[in-house]
Amino acid sequence: MRFELLATDRKTHARRGRLTTTHGGVETPVFMPCGTQATVKTLDPRDLHELGYELVLCNTYHLSLRPGDEVIKTLGGLHRFMGWDRAILTDSGGYQVLSLAVLRNITEEGVTFQSHLDGSRYLLTPEKAVQIQLALGADIIMALDECPPHSADYEYHRDSMERTLRWAGRCRDTLQEDQPALFGIIQGGTHLDLRSRSVEATSRVGFSGYALVGLGIGEGAAQMNNVVEHTTALLPAESPRYLMGIGTPQDLLEGIARGVDMFDCVLPTRNARNGGLFTSTGRLNIKGAAYAKDERPVDPACSCYTCQHFSRAYLRHLYVTDEILGLRLNTIHNLHYYAELMRQARQTIEAGTFPIWKRECLAKMACDPPTSKHPQETRTDD
Amino acid sequence: MRFELLATDRKTHARRGRLTTTHGGVETPVFMPCGTQATVKTLDPRDLHELGYELVLCNTYHLSLRPGDEVIKTLGGLHRFMGWDRAILTDSGGYQVLSLAVLRNITEEGVTFQSHLDGSRYLLTPEKAVQIQLALGADIIMALDECPPHSADYEYHRDSMERTLRWAGRCRDTLQEDQPALFGIIQGGTHLDLRSRSVEATSRVGFSGYALVGLGIGEGAAQMNNVVEHTTALLPAESPRYLMGIGTPQDLLEGIARGVDMFDCVLPTRNARNGGLFTSTGRLNIKGAAYAKDERPVDPACSCYTCQHFSRAYLRHLYVTDEILGLRLNTIHNLHYYAELMRQARQTIEAGTFPIWKRECLAKMACDPPTSKHPQETRTDD
Repeated sequence: MRFELLATDRKTHARRGRLTTTHGGVETPVFMPCGTQATVKTLDPRDLHELGYELVLCNTYHLSLRPGDEVIKTLGGLHRFMGWDRAILTDSGGYQVLSLAVLRNITEEGVTFQSHLDGSRYLLTPEKAVQIQLALGADIIMALDECPPHSADYEYHRDSMERTLRWAGRCRDTLQEDQPALFGIIQGGTHLDLRSRSVEATSRVGFSGYALVGLGIGEGAAQMNNVVEHTTALLPAESPRYLMGIGTPQDLLEGIARGVDMFDCVLPTRNARNGGLFTSTGRLNIKGAAYAKDERPVDPACSCYTCQHFSRAYLRHLYVTDEILGLRLNTIHNLHYYAELMRQARQTIEAGTFPIWKRECLAKMACDPPTSKHPQETRTDD
Repeated sequence: MRFELLATDRKTHARRGRLTTTHGGVETPVFMPCGTQATVKTLDPRDLHELGYELVLCNTYHLSLRPGDEVIKTLGGLHRFMGWDRAILTDSGGYQVLSLAVLRNITEEGVTFQSHLDGSRYLLTPEKAVQIQLALGADIIMALDECPPHSADYEYHRDSMERTLRWAGRCRDTLQEDQPALFGIIQGGTHLDLRSRSVEATSRVGFSGYALVGLGIGEGAAQMNNVVEHTTALLPAESPRYLMGIGTPQDLLEGIARGVDMFDCVLPTRNARNGGLFTSTGRLNIKGAAYAKDERPVDPACSCYTCQHFSRAYLRHLYVTDEILGLRLNTIHNLHYYAELMRQARQTIEAGTFPIWKRECLAKMACDPPTSKHPQETRTDD
């Protein structure tokens, strides 16, 4: 993987770049939809192409349990399995082990856990996390981290971060060549000194990119933005920065302004399946009785397939009658909104108008719920 | 609506025709997918276009309750509501009133019933059935009938048929012009004398087409084929014949051979959502553990989007993990199978090779479950 910086905003830290993978280029800043179980829920690869996505995230934990990483490897890898010929990023599985699995035990060696599906026992080590991701055949893979909960105290965060650092070296050593690209994990909660130490030591190990984790879990937007700003300033400029599991449209704009290049979040896809839709003038929920006879599209300013062909009344009807098509049409709309937001961010960074555009966007979103809401809205599986 | 007969098979009664509606032409014999609640479950109109469908069926009972026929009318009619610019056929609602609604009471005036959704009370009369379908704006609509259960005796069938005949006149009188096309209903169960009487009297009222109902509800394939053969021989050759709620691929071939022009059934779409897939060499269920590592497409001979891009292993994975994409990919495959079967039927009727082709098809399907299986597999809602 190669990363080029094409432009940098003069007033903010916003960066315009390009990742080049063996499965095509990825223009940054980029938002990745979540393809948890080897499908972005309700969509097929053609939908994703049409929406302009060049990179999707898949979950190592889920896929290693079902259908199994060795099965996927035998079948020619994840790209072939899911019929997706563009880039794929996989996470390490560490987050899901801690959020979904049962009877976890964390030692220096790794994490032992029981599958949430059938209780079968596994040991996930840093080496194993890399090997699984190699078997899946992703273009960008993540080092294993131990994720402290939001309630963790300073000592917990420090110890987790130090262990993750030791695991970082073991992950790095497991990978023979720089193929796929391996990202290091930056931890430390909201403690800036721990973030500094994490950046310093992780970048010394040396990775193709760096993922900021442990944010969007209840600390609030101001704290998150503060940590991001502090951390990106310390990270090597020539490597991509990935803010994992984030977030709302507001979060994305604030992250971009602070030098983040990559994002993923279940928010657009999960909200879609609950009827929650993003528009250029704020959010709406299609369940509302007010839409029963509303012949307008979700967003008259939107050019997505859903808005070009269907009314709010029809989408509400599909929601009310539990029709699967509604879930897909809503997902198409929300992922178009996110893709378009990122396209505009890239354009305005290039044109030098990012700060003005960002201010206007945030003003339009002002009537929305505040950012970094309930943790469940952001970082989990889709 | 206009119906032209383009060719007739010399050895069977198979007919090759064309319906011309205000929403385009429909090549016959035709299979209509069920768009029960204004969507063919899991698919969007673009999918249907791609599969080559020119006509879909929607359910008056469901749509008149939710969102309501007046709402759909206000929103510009069913075509605009569901984003479908080709032809639509609606049923009369009579079948669902008798299969889904509660506390039914049938009088000469019509059927009073309570909605299965909220218990609200309705009166469906022949006039009302036509008016609702006019409000929906379908291209082809059905006269109201009272559907006797399979267990009904001769007297029950005779009385139902006679009442349906009286209702036929009232439906005919409700329609001012021949727009949309109104089809009469041929009843009589498996009693050939009742079928004869029904054809004779219904065609005397005069309709644009004739629907054979009360079949595929447990009488068995031989009985059904016998009734169809008897009935189509009596119907006016210049009008299309529609075998409602039928059926399996075998049923379709036998119906075509006996002069049926139109079919609808939930079988391909419902089976798809349960993992049941049709192939050129018989049926398979994708749930099977045997497919866990099977990298072949569902049917190597199939040119559908699903078979061109995905393995059995992937489809099984989607099924096992409850991923919605699996339901859609399975539906695309099964509806492609049905569309292709009808395309080949039309071609072979034109080429004079229909009997040979039919025999070969049936031989390939020989390992399948017998035709006219459990009633639930055919005539109900999708």
